[in-house]
Amino acid sequence: MERASTVIRADDGTATVINVFDVDASKQQELIEVLTEGAEKVMQHRPGFISVNLLASNDGSRVVNYAQWGSLDDVKATLANPDAQSYAKKAAALAEATPHVYSVVSVHHA
Amino acid sequence: MERASTVIRADDGTATVINVFDVDASKQQELIEVLTEGAEKVMQHRPGFISVNLLASNDGSRVVNYAQWGSLDDVKATLANPDAQSYAKKAAALAEATPHVYSVVSVHHA
Repeated sequence: MERASTVIRADDGTATVINVFDVDASKQQELIEVLTEGAEKVMQHRPGFISVNLLASNDGSRVVNYAQWGSLDDVKATLANPDAQSYAKKAAALAEATPHVYSVVSVHHA
Repeated sequence: MERASTVIRADDGTATVINVFDVDASKQQELIEVLTEGAEKVMQHRPGFISVNLLASNDGSRVVNYAQWGSLDDVKATLANPDAQSYAKKAAALAEATPHVYSVVSVHHA
């Protein structure tokens, strides 16, 4: 699904989960592979899933998983799902994760 | 520009700067106001600017500034701009900033 595109809008009622991974540069690629597999095998089949967007920092030290869900309840249900937890554990073995739930406050364009 | 929408795509040649602010919940709103003013008065007039997307964590402890630029050179030029630096200082007085430059690796949809 490399050609898909994601839309960010303010006040659209969705829940955004941004998980920032602090990772050793030697493991950045392996972490991305785990998160990609988790997105394809588990996340994108979950109720309320909208998108997962994976970003790699140019310096190798971070990976950001920017995920959109229909509602906060969808997020909570997925956090409690054993398959999702299995991928979260694999990622946690490679990097320090800092996940938070966010709302889009504003979008500014030129 | 609240009604604008931002598009995330992999491999589109843009540079993404994600700045994660660790903030005291009592200052989250003030930080958002500083970043909003900086986006409107400085960032969106800079060469190569595509978008600034501001997200507030539901627990009050984080603000994420997800910014898109045409190229890494545009990012470097803006980091060296005195007006941009002035807003960065105002934000740094309110919160701990962790900015990194990223590339979008992949986008996954249902």
